[in-house]
Amino acid sequence: MKLTEIGEFGLIKVIEAVVAQADRGEGVVRGIGDDVAIIRSASGKVLLVTTDLLLEGVHFNLAHTDPVALGKKALAANLSDIAACGGIPTAFVVSLAIPVETEVDFVKALYEGMMEQAMQFNCSLIGGDTSRGEKLMISITLLGEAKKEKIVYRHGAKEGDQIFVTGHVGDAALGLEQVKRGEQEGYFIEQHLDPTPRVREGQEIARQGLATAMIDISDGLVADLGHMLEASRVGAQVHISKLPLSEQYRKAIEQYQSDRYQLALAGGEDYELLFTAPAERAQEIKKLATELGTPMTLIGEIVEASQGVKVLWEDGKAYPIEQKGHDHFQT
Amino acid sequence: MKLTEIGEFGLIKVIEAVVAQADRGEGVVRGIGDDVAIIRSASGKVLLVTTDLLLEGVHFNLAHTDPVALGKKALAANLSDIAACGGIPTAFVVSLAIPVETEVDFVKALYEGMMEQAMQFNCSLIGGDTSRGEKLMISITLLGEAKKEKIVYRHGAKEGDQIFVTGHVGDAALGLEQVKRGEQEGYFIEQHLDPTPRVREGQEIARQGLATAMIDISDGLVADLGHMLEASRVGAQVHISKLPLSEQYRKAIEQYQSDRYQLALAGGEDYELLFTAPAERAQEIKKLATELGTPMTLIGEIVEASQGVKVLWEDGKAYPIEQKGHDHFQT
Repeated sequence: MKLTEIGEFGLIKVIEAVVAQADRGEGVVRGIGDDVAIIRSASGKVLLVTTDLLLEGVHFNLAHTDPVALGKKALAANLSDIAACGGIPTAFVVSLAIPVETEVDFVKALYEGMMEQAMQFNCSLIGGDTSRGEKLMISITLLGEAKKEKIVYRHGAKEGDQIFVTGHVGDAALGLEQVKRGEQEGYFIEQHLDPTPRVREGQEIARQGLATAMIDISDGLVADLGHMLEASRVGAQVHISKLPLSEQYRKAIEQYQSDRYQLALAGGEDYELLFTAPAERAQEIKKLATELGTPMTLIGEIVEASQGVKVLWEDGKAYPIEQKGHDHFQT
Repeated sequence: MKLTEIGEFGLIKVIEAVVAQADRGEGVVRGIGDDVAIIRSASGKVLLVTTDLLLEGVHFNLAHTDPVALGKKALAANLSDIAACGGIPTAFVVSLAIPVETEVDFVKALYEGMMEQAMQFNCSLIGGDTSRGEKLMISITLLGEAKKEKIVYRHGAKEGDQIFVTGHVGDAALGLEQVKRGEQEGYFIEQHLDPTPRVREGQEIARQGLATAMIDISDGLVADLGHMLEASRVGAQVHISKLPLSEQYRKAIEQYQSDRYQLALAGGEDYELLFTAPAERAQEIKKLATELGTPMTLIGEIVEASQGVKVLWEDGKAYPIEQKGHDHFQT
């Protein structure tokens, strides 16, 4: 059945039915279905707001993406932003533009993916808007909360701090590379389509006050490190030998790229957290990594601003890398 | 200069410069320019969230709309939703998809319009996202706050209540009709392009506890009254002779429509508030209307559900009207 057959109000009913199957958060006074949603603000906490836009043909290609994965990933991008400041995601609204010829089941699967992701992190879909459009467009605004004094910003890195990154880097970018070459499944494509936002990791790092600065590396490790350095007015050196490459990546990369490190350093798509901490916190970070079962790997140090950012081989020679992130208007 | 020349980060700088000229709200801890915005939640209040999507070719036509007016109107739709529950708008995020060939000055004017509107109601632009897109798309999520016990819903209308509407009805719809016929300016087009959301009126109605139910009538008086009746499980009768038509509308309408009342009852586009109140509050409503300088006109009564909704001539005969609102997927 297509959207033209059920109309806008039919579509809203389909979405409401998917959302109703999920638990509604405790803080939600009035959720989806009204012009305005109402949530309780937590006392003593500040409110976090982040928004992300995904367009067909720009951010994803429907030929390579199933709707459940797309729904999960649409919310993952926002969750990762909340994670990067150590916040707790609470509720989100979704605006959807969609071609009228779309199958109703496609939309259902899209929202099922979103709700699957949302339930993992206890957040609720509380409202949205829908419109016909020539291409699919998903705009999500996610709210979260945090104790103000615990929030980690991207601007707090200090000279002498160590630089850590969660999980592995490069797997998701390699997955995207495989998708572009027409491959359809496997470990890397799974990492690309269904990245895990590091929400719990971000919360614990913030709660324990371990990090001086934190950012997610969805634009690529070097590009996002660059954003952190700029905000913190410091420089950094990153050691290539210390990059946390997965065993799978080490084995597979040579089939795809003559340069083993390019995708890990600049490929983006990893929803991992990059953070800085004073050397004396290293033991606590190691302990937290063990407790959460998430690697947190020391990859470099913060240096003074004048040194800029350097990626170094073991012999101290510099690895040449483009620092520039993705520009939507100049591709 | 076009967006391709300044790139995504250039665009963000342009937007930041426009936003920086406006006052930043007291509650904003961290605004535009970061992945996550932070605002203080007001103690003892609940948080309101509403979101609206505007697409070129669906909701507006760039041939008829200048960017300042478009920016003002994009925010007005959200403000009107917050107004309808009696809330106070506080902060908003804007996601923008835009063709790369767009002139930078166009984007600047669009945000200037938004900020002009925002400043009228003391709310702050705190973040957003931008992407290239084939057509212009604006998605705004507006936050607000309210005392939970003061919020007015669409579901509280009781049999015997009187029905009021703010301002005039039909002017904006007549303006849209003129635009479609190629006219370019004048009173009605101004009402269509730059409607005033009734934020202060909604707040005062809520603060004084005057209304049992409230809704805005951007989908058309009869369609939105229908939403209120359905939520409240009651019926209504509306008296044609009591509709608040502007003097301009009464004079001009016959050049455009043989039926004088069609646009006023079903044309939509009016950002007025429709609310119900017990008869004993009528004097207070009259007083409030005088204080605010905004007409609040008694147009009918709530009756029992089985009677449905009737629009009546002075002699008691029924005026035939389509109750159906606009459907984005079945036009």
